[in-house]
Amino acid sequence: MTSTSNSTRSSSPLSNGLPTTLSRNEALSLATVTAACVAVLVNVFREPEPSPLIASLALSGLAFVAAFALIRWLGPTFLRAGIKGADLSKRVRRELPECMGGVCAVVYLLAVIVFIPFPFYKDIVAATSGGGNKDVVLPVEHVQRGRFLHRFPHSKLASYLSAIISLQSIALLGIGDDLFDIRWRHKFFIPAFAAIPLLVVYFVDFGVTSVVIPIQLQPYLGELLDLGALYYVYMAAVAIFSPNSINILAGINGIEVAQSIVIALLLSLNDCLYLLTPYPHPATDSHLFSLYFLLPFLGVSLALLYHNWYPARVFVGDTYCYFAGMVFVVVSILGHFSKTLVLLLVPQIFNFLYSTPQLFGLVPCPRHRLPRFNARTNLLEPSVTQWTPDHQPKAPIAWVLRLLGRLRLLRVTLDDEDRFVETSNFTLLNLWLVWRGPLREDRLALEITVLQAALGLFGLFVRHRLALLVFKADNWSLGFNV
Amino acid sequence: MTSTSNSTRSSSPLSNGLPTTLSRNEALSLATVTAACVAVLVNVFREPEPSPLIASLALSGLAFVAAFALIRWLGPTFLRAGIKGADLSKRVRRELPECMGGVCAVVYLLAVIVFIPFPFYKDIVAATSGGGNKDVVLPVEHVQRGRFLHRFPHSKLASYLSAIISLQSIALLGIGDDLFDIRWRHKFFIPAFAAIPLLVVYFVDFGVTSVVIPIQLQPYLGELLDLGALYYVYMAAVAIFSPNSINILAGINGIEVAQSIVIALLLSLNDCLYLLTPYPHPATDSHLFSLYFLLPFLGVSLALLYHNWYPARVFVGDTYCYFAGMVFVVVSILGHFSKTLVLLLVPQIFNFLYSTPQLFGLVPCPRHRLPRFNARTNLLEPSVTQWTPDHQPKAPIAWVLRLLGRLRLLRVTLDDEDRFVETSNFTLLNLWLVWRGPLREDRLALEITVLQAALGLFGLFVRHRLALLVFKADNWSLGFNV
Repeated sequence: MTSTSNSTRSSSPLSNGLPTTLSRNEALSLATVTAACVAVLVNVFREPEPSPLIASLALSGLAFVAAFALIRWLGPTFLRAGIKGADLSKRVRRELPECMGGVCAVVYLLAVIVFIPFPFYKDIVAATSGGGNKDVVLPVEHVQRGRFLHRFPHSKLASYLSAIISLQSIALLGIGDDLFDIRWRHKFFIPAFAAIPLLVVYFVDFGVTSVVIPIQLQPYLGELLDLGALYYVYMAAVAIFSPNSINILAGINGIEVAQSIVIALLLSLNDCLYLLTPYPHPATDSHLFSLYFLLPFLGVSLALLYHNWYPARVFVGDTYCYFAGMVFVVVSILGHFSKTLVLLLVPQIFNFLYSTPQLFGLVPCPRHRLPRFNARTNLLEPSVTQWTPDHQPKAPIAWVLRLLGRLRLLRVTLDDEDRFVETSNFTLLNLWLVWRGPLREDRLALEITVLQAALGLFGLFVRHRLALLVFKADNWSLGFNV
Repeated sequence: MTSTSNSTRSSSPLSNGLPTTLSRNEALSLATVTAACVAVLVNVFREPEPSPLIASLALSGLAFVAAFALIRWLGPTFLRAGIKGADLSKRVRRELPECMGGVCAVVYLLAVIVFIPFPFYKDIVAATSGGGNKDVVLPVEHVQRGRFLHRFPHSKLASYLSAIISLQSIALLGIGDDLFDIRWRHKFFIPAFAAIPLLVVYFVDFGVTSVVIPIQLQPYLGELLDLGALYYVYMAAVAIFSPNSINILAGINGIEVAQSIVIALLLSLNDCLYLLTPYPHPATDSHLFSLYFLLPFLGVSLALLYHNWYPARVFVGDTYCYFAGMVFVVVSILGHFSKTLVLLLVPQIFNFLYSTPQLFGLVPCPRHRLPRFNARTNLLEPSVTQWTPDHQPKAPIAWVLRLLGRLRLLRVTLDDEDRFVETSNFTLLNLWLVWRGPLREDRLALEITVLQAALGLFGLFVRHRLALLVFKADNWSLGFNV
């Protein structure tokens, strides 16, 4: 409908006291980063063999700047549109803009779309009939069919585009989830829909469904096993699990973004290992591809972390969690290292398995399971599920709850007659608080982030050092994707 | 954040009296269409040479069913989330769900993504080493690089995917516009952002920037002229104009969807002309490509029209207008018939040019310019801009307004002292009401739709019959894109 908006952007602080403009220092820093990145980009253009990786770094810097400024500026717009939530773990409950992950997703998508010409630039020049000279007049039949295209890596372009489509899909569906507050049972399958473009293009474009068999099993199964349709089921499972697992390790300021940044950094570290090998290594292209998607993600995520870290001034929304998880899915499936991704998601996998009693309704699941804020101490404590004398868990569940309590995997409070009064909620954050005692919100987020990093580094070590025990060769040293 | 929604879907009619479930007849009809489409799809799978066009028709039918049901079911969810608007041109002003074009866009995108394997299916079978036999074990080096890919039309796949990315981008940005009510000056450029993926992939993938020169100019410019960067400016201009032009010919029930359906039907008719020629015609593939995008669009649009036609039960939102315009841009740019699209947008072009005095601020532009509803007669009358004796148009503008009034291109009301009292607003809908007198809302929408169809058919006739006067050959008969 034709409508001219009469809204005006407020430049004064919000009623909740949050800034809506960049401070002088912030503006100067962002301008400096912008200038540096633009200078790098211009230099990349000038070089005879432009490096896509350097262009990607510069675009990621620009994505950081854009996300940082937009998150600050759009706060009042989001609040006005009613896209907001209250921070439950603070003495003063302020309404904060929600779903800022959507802003990051849009900036990120623009960055990876604008980046498209860089990795393919060299091939364009080689593919043009005049060796890059655009003044050469093409005969009519070439205009009809386009330029000589045989040397152009369309296969990789299609992979790259399918990754963008999957990421856009998850952004669209994630925003829908944030707006409509979809039920848990339904939202669990949102990533499955977003994975369809990835799997469809994998099917028509790549279609490799064989996996390498561990040495010990090769006498029985052969060196390679074609999983066929099962391989698509496996990829769909990874695609559903990764975004959801990040979405359920959530609930305190900064934790969603911090864990995603750690995973992205570890995946980038893994990618860099492959870049150090001599170039025509078969896995190099896959890992460059992965970096092209991870670097801009790190750019927008760092900008978001600045605003979302304790005390948060914005919320990230389900959109961010889904989006982050799907970035990892996209790079690991198209780069053929989805098992490496699984190694980096160990805390998320533990959190999911640990959560199952409540997710599947064996133990009552309250609306929110985030740690309980104690306003007197300003610390977080484990949140609990209440049990009344009339409403006690059934015998087998009671037995398991007591066992978990004895193993210190759950805080169980019993009354004088050995009846359940309360049990801590089944999330990693609550368990950590059971172990470490009450913690301030930022301390808890930091400790979980360090845990994520330590387990991830150990996982990468295992993957590269111990893989030789079960596979003939680690693909890092010898060039085969395990 | 972890959150389990406790909202329940209401199955009773809304407080505004609108149904939220399918009637028995509707459910039966939709089930029949679904069964027929699924049967067709299964048959397509069984055939030795499956026809993508028939698969596209069946998927479009399924898209119609899904959009129809979802628009009905999601009404209460949209109202609860505050995505709603009041219908100004009714005696009883009801709040209706807004932005239902977003639902159509998501269904449409899923349909065109699921469709991907069909046009490429034949090539997959041919490209697999075993001639389609998936049990053939591939040697290790083929697993590394994928299957033999030389016969696979990756070039077309990349075009198809870039089209999807552009359409997803416009859906994302359109939803943002509907949520945040972006200012007119800013929203005008939303389609430009969404066109970036299309232009970038055109650049790396296709890169044809030459146009055929009319015979009369060939002595001066040659047979072909390479516009180079200018060609991208031209494409960007079309991409900005088409979505915006549909967005400003709006404001009464059904007009946005009806005009889009007419344009899509005329583009499909034009495509079908090319399918009647013997197959290895160079333009056939482009026009099949166009049909693959237009048929599902017709599917979701017809479902939306049912709910949006007078008296509307849902609104379409800016999302739909942008999305429709971008579908036309995508098929016409990638199919190389953007000039044909311009011929079909004549009413939109007229509406835009006619609107410029108000869009550019020469004449005051009220918040809404939709026709004025007369509650006494239940008819629409031209809406007006008011002038006071103190606030009169400047001399040159007054001269133009008087001239337009004399040409019957504007309704001008003067007082006894020849001062302006009111002038009708500068939109095609108001002008039509100036000419045809007060009309009921559905009558006005119908007449404008018929006008659109008549002008479009005439445009296609001109394009195919008269093109021979200025070009050596019409590409319909001789095979060259004009």
